[in-house]
Amino acid sequence: MLGIGVIGYGYWGPNIVRNLAETPGACVRHVVDLREEQIAKVRKRYPGIQTGADPGALIDDPGIDAIVVASPTSTHFELAMRALQAGKHVLIEKPMVTTVREAERLVAEAARRSLTLMVDHTYVYTPAVQRIRELIVGGELGNVLYYDATRINLGLFQHDVDVIWDLAVHDVSILAYLLDAAPIAVSATGQNHLSNIPQNVAYLTMFFAGKLIAHVNVNWLSPVKIRRTIIGGSRKMLVYDDLEPSDKIKVYESGLRLEEDPEQVRRMLIGHRTGDMWAPALPPTEALSAVAAHFVDCASNGRPCITSGEKGLAVVRTLAAASRSVQLQGHAIDVATLEPCNPS
Amino acid sequence: MLGIGVIGYGYWGPNIVRNLAETPGACVRHVVDLREEQIAKVRKRYPGIQTGADPGALIDDPGIDAIVVASPTSTHFELAMRALQAGKHVLIEKPMVTTVREAERLVAEAARRSLTLMVDHTYVYTPAVQRIRELIVGGELGNVLYYDATRINLGLFQHDVDVIWDLAVHDVSILAYLLDAAPIAVSATGQNHLSNIPQNVAYLTMFFAGKLIAHVNVNWLSPVKIRRTIIGGSRKMLVYDDLEPSDKIKVYESGLRLEEDPEQVRRMLIGHRTGDMWAPALPPTEALSAVAAHFVDCASNGRPCITSGEKGLAVVRTLAAASRSVQLQGHAIDVATLEPCNPS
Amino acid sequence: MLGIGVIGYGYWGPNIVRNLAETPGACVRHVVDLREEQIAKVRKRYPGIQTGADPGALIDDPGIDAIVVASPTSTHFELAMRALQAGKHVLIEKPMVTTVREAERLVAEAARRSLTLMVDHTYVYTPAVQRIRELIVGGELGNVLYYDATRINLGLFQHDVDVIWDLAVHDVSILAYLLDAAPIAVSATGQNHLSNIPQNVAYLTMFFAGKLIAHVNVNWLSPVKIRRTIIGGSRKMLVYDDLEPSDKIKVYESGLRLEEDPEQVRRMLIGHRTGDMWAPALPPTEALSAVAAHFVDCASNGRPCITSGEKGLAVVRTLAAASRSVQLQGHAIDVATLEPCNPS
Amino acid sequence: MLGIGVIGYGYWGPNIVRNLAETPGACVRHVVDLREEQIAKVRKRYPGIQTGADPGALIDDPGIDAIVVASPTSTHFELAMRALQAGKHVLIEKPMVTTVREAERLVAEAARRSLTLMVDHTYVYTPAVQRIRELIVGGELGNVLYYDATRINLGLFQHDVDVIWDLAVHDVSILAYLLDAAPIAVSATGQNHLSNIPQNVAYLTMFFAGKLIAHVNVNWLSPVKIRRTIIGGSRKMLVYDDLEPSDKIKVYESGLRLEEDPEQVRRMLIGHRTGDMWAPALPPTEALSAVAAHFVDCASNGRPCITSGEKGLAVVRTLAAASRSVQLQGHAIDVATLEPCNPS
Repeated sequence: MLGIGVIGYGYWGPNIVRNLAETPGACVRHVVDLREEQIAKVRKRYPGIQTGADPGALIDDPGIDAIVVASPTSTHFELAMRALQAGKHVLIEKPMVTTVREAERLVAEAARRSLTLMVDHTYVYTPAVQRIRELIVGGELGNVLYYDATRINLGLFQHDVDVIWDLAVHDVSILAYLLDAAPIAVSATGQNHLSNIPQNVAYLTMFFAGKLIAHVNVNWLSPVKIRRTIIGGSRKMLVYDDLEPSDKIKVYESGLRLEEDPEQVRRMLIGHRTGDMWAPALPPTEALSAVAAHFVDCASNGRPCITSGEKGLAVVRTLAAASRSVQLQGHAIDVATLEPCNPS
Repeated sequence: MLGIGVIGYGYWGPNIVRNLAETPGACVRHVVDLREEQIAKVRKRYPGIQTGADPGALIDDPGIDAIVVASPTSTHFELAMRALQAGKHVLIEKPMVTTVREAERLVAEAARRSLTLMVDHTYVYTPAVQRIRELIVGGELGNVLYYDATRINLGLFQHDVDVIWDLAVHDVSILAYLLDAAPIAVSATGQNHLSNIPQNVAYLTMFFAGKLIAHVNVNWLSPVKIRRTIIGGSRKMLVYDDLEPSDKIKVYESGLRLEEDPEQVRRMLIGHRTGDMWAPALPPTEALSAVAAHFVDCASNGRPCITSGEKGLAVVRTLAAASRSVQLQGHAIDVATLEPCNPS
Repeated sequence: MLGIGVIGYGYWGPNIVRNLAETPGACVRHVVDLREEQIAKVRKRYPGIQTGADPGALIDDPGIDAIVVASPTSTHFELAMRALQAGKHVLIEKPMVTTVREAERLVAEAARRSLTLMVDHTYVYTPAVQRIRELIVGGELGNVLYYDATRINLGLFQHDVDVIWDLAVHDVSILAYLLDAAPIAVSATGQNHLSNIPQNVAYLTMFFAGKLIAHVNVNWLSPVKIRRTIIGGSRKMLVYDDLEPSDKIKVYESGLRLEEDPEQVRRMLIGHRTGDMWAPALPPTEALSAVAAHFVDCASNGRPCITSGEKGLAVVRTLAAASRSVQLQGHAIDVATLEPCNPS
Repeated sequence: MLGIGVIGYGYWGPNIVRNLAETPGACVRHVVDLREEQIAKVRKRYPGIQTGADPGALIDDPGIDAIVVASPTSTHFELAMRALQAGKHVLIEKPMVTTVREAERLVAEAARRSLTLMVDHTYVYTPAVQRIRELIVGGELGNVLYYDATRINLGLFQHDVDVIWDLAVHDVSILAYLLDAAPIAVSATGQNHLSNIPQNVAYLTMFFAGKLIAHVNVNWLSPVKIRRTIIGGSRKMLVYDDLEPSDKIKVYESGLRLEEDPEQVRRMLIGHRTGDMWAPALPPTEALSAVAAHFVDCASNGRPCITSGEKGLAVVRTLAAASRSVQLQGHAIDVATLEPCNPS
């Protein structure tokens, strides 16, 4: 039985606690939050859980084997580091941290102590993304040509991170999972329209090896909510609309064979759509319940995580490159070095 | 009665001829196309129109006062220049030409001869775009913060231009019309996935004066067709979906007052949507019929065109900047000079 | 403080308990269900609530002032009657009961004892239906000409009632609320496609005074879920789509003026749509929380209920007429007498 | 070469002429319409076609082998009968005629003279309906359980027929084609809300042999246009949305096996949807071009028509039964005898 402590009971914390509470092999023992009214909610719903305002007490609690860091992003590094140093496994909310240096130090610390460090990139655990990975790995789509995501809404502002670190983080982590690869360079643009509030709209283009290009459109000031990703492959293409109650993934047999001669390709394209569409059924699993089960399994059995600290570090690297590129009005940034690419 | 000749009877030509044929004050007298089977169609539908394969004969035809250049883009400059030099008014299909130099020379020639030079940026003449301009000019939206367009489909490949010059041209011309302003700089990225076929996917970010940012996503290899533009204003926001049979424009009262204090803004945004939505009725006018009427009016009466050669030149300048930026992996290009911006 | 007991903790019971638990002035004290695994859930979530399997013990519990009957429909009459006889206020799930005689006896018993008898017609309490009533009562729509609802899905089968009593009950109760009127006659058709399972598809037409006609299409075997109601008025028309995350109600200015001369009407109709569309913002209130608050208020203060026993009786009468009409292949049934209408 | 005359150049006539003009083996020689402005349009577009106002002259024209009757419905019988008596093949617009007696006489006359009598039930010739028939005949759907169509819009009023004869005629003819069967009885309800204008809303339930039930919802006064048909089968179900630009047909693997035991069925239905969805690609053929080709082929080669006069007679019989049922407030009418069914 893995004893679990949760730091932060704000927007996401209640979902975390509820899912961990229902995960076999785990027991939520301690929850802390600075806000008394949040802690009151924990006490009302879970009378058996110890509560408090002091993360230090939670980290030092000997009944706690693993800690979830669900506090504001700016506190992630310090709390996660202290938890690792106290010998606890750590599940950390996205974005993990906001500098590459901090991410590297957390990864190193977890490695040195052989502790599980996992990032809660929840979308990776959705049945939809899991199925898309099967389609890609199984060769159904052929070579992936592009990934194009729109993730916009008139939604909750994050005060301590901007829209790239709040929303684009989802697509960057999904891409890392789908492709087993990190981008080589990133060109990004954006704008902050509201004083005192960080960047609220941004556009990222990520260049991968070969001709694969990924684009992400994130916006906090949209009048409508859109969660739509198009993935173009050389054989098939798919549209993933996370807001569809059913048929979230639609696979189109309209792919092109790259080997075909251009004239034939041209003719194929004159028509609207040449093949059938197919929407696989998806199980109704809640992604966060899979996150909870995976973390408990990895921490209890020393298994590697799908969204490990290393993977989280790669995500942070890409987001840091994007942030730098926005400052340079779109000049591409080398993800490995975080330096501007040479104008080719 | 304005005598009209049309060069090119391919994809768009038949629509042009049909609309001009129904425009009062105009008479289509002569149509040329190199392809015999296309010319046969003209003869069958319009027995009274003279036909042929020789643009020169058409240009020299004394019964012709105005010429529509609807041939492949690579021929636009030469044919339009010859037409102007022969003293004819010219309506030229989009993209006008593909170099700034050529656009400048056409504009100068038309000015010298006091001839009408108009570019067929058809979308500008749609009831939807006309209405959006009214909303912007009338202050309904407040300050325009961003313009975000997605214009993708699995569609007809243009062999002699890439997706920027084929599709993004629509948004660049719409923006010029809506804002009465040209972008200061452009950052663009893209990819060509098919050998022997030009760039098929591209992403443009245009920086305007102030904090206004415009983004355009164009793609020839999408499994689905999307024509959706979101315009965010400080008072209201709108979504323009050109594929909706009705309710093409939806105006949302969810705009923010920039002057409000951030904390209040933050609270407003926590809810999904705070105000009503409203979809103005639009007349069912065909845009091309408005194009035809406007061209006939401008040419006959010497009036200035909404989409004049000068406006077309500004569009060409922006597209040229985008093309250059794509070569530089997103490095922003100064639209006025077409030189890379200094990394700030 | 109103002490509340809940009989039945199956599909809807947990929602009832959760909402009543958060209603000021009420305290859920006792929950019973025959299934041990359901009772275990209550104990886990609400350690302070008394639990058990015996409705009799709950009804006799002196700490209980009001009882929610959320058990299978076939048990509603007996349990509600016993609760009333024990002097308790009663909130009863829909459908209230399945015979007019039983509904009449419950209404009479509650009246004799001056107890609150309320039916949980949840949809009546949605912000959407509340707003539609405002539009109708305020004259916005003009005279209501028709109500046309489609309520279909591949969903949970109810074993002890058919699709009319399970799904059409929603529309019949909504209509009663919107119009303050009951239908005069009902013609209904339907079919049961699965042996041992009651009617799974049905179509009801309800005739009201004047020319108002209402139609309801209910189906348990649809491949897609639809919850869409169109209300046509002489001035405006509206579409209410309960599955839309926002813009659930769209009001169209395409109404006709009945007084206009037919020729003019004809011309108006040739176009697609002549006026604007408008979607009022709706508060995000959960309907069941309004149900809980209203019941607690009515029971505590002796106020009349919006969905009182009398209203529920009228709904039962209409559904009974529909059921009889289905047996007669659509022959209209007089709602007041439940006899076949004379063929006119 | 089949010489063709067309009577009536109103809403549908121009489409008929255009498609017949492009059909190999046919030549449109003569068009008549009482309205001078309509005839002027013919002359402008087709200078080679003889025109006039007198149907008699057209019927007697010796160059005419086949006649299309596209005039108002009330004139169909007389014109079609005269054409048949003059030895001409006849293609007649829907609705063919509005009485069973007239339909029988036309069928008999055509049979006696061995002439082709075809009804233009255009929807039968759409790629979508053709494909649905393949799915049904091929057993893909299993046993058809129900057909449920919604065909509503704020559209063109027909002055001489009501909404049943104008819109429901489409579904009745589609059903006849899909099922090779006519309904046994019809129960229908409706209302006429506008004085001097015939019935504008109607609901038809058709009972077929076995447990198959078909329902059609037609409405001229809807604020939105809907063209959606759901077909439930024992193995699969489909949704046919004629307004979808692509994916008009969606096939759901959520069908039930009737032989399964009810308990298992119940469990299957608790989830939202258990199987994949699939949308077959459809060719972009215009239905009316298939109508034209089929008529020319049948008339030229004496082949039987898919939508022959006999089929049209069956459609008329069903619509007449529906009209009678509306008068009787839903009392079912026997389609064979047009008498009210005995209340069972």
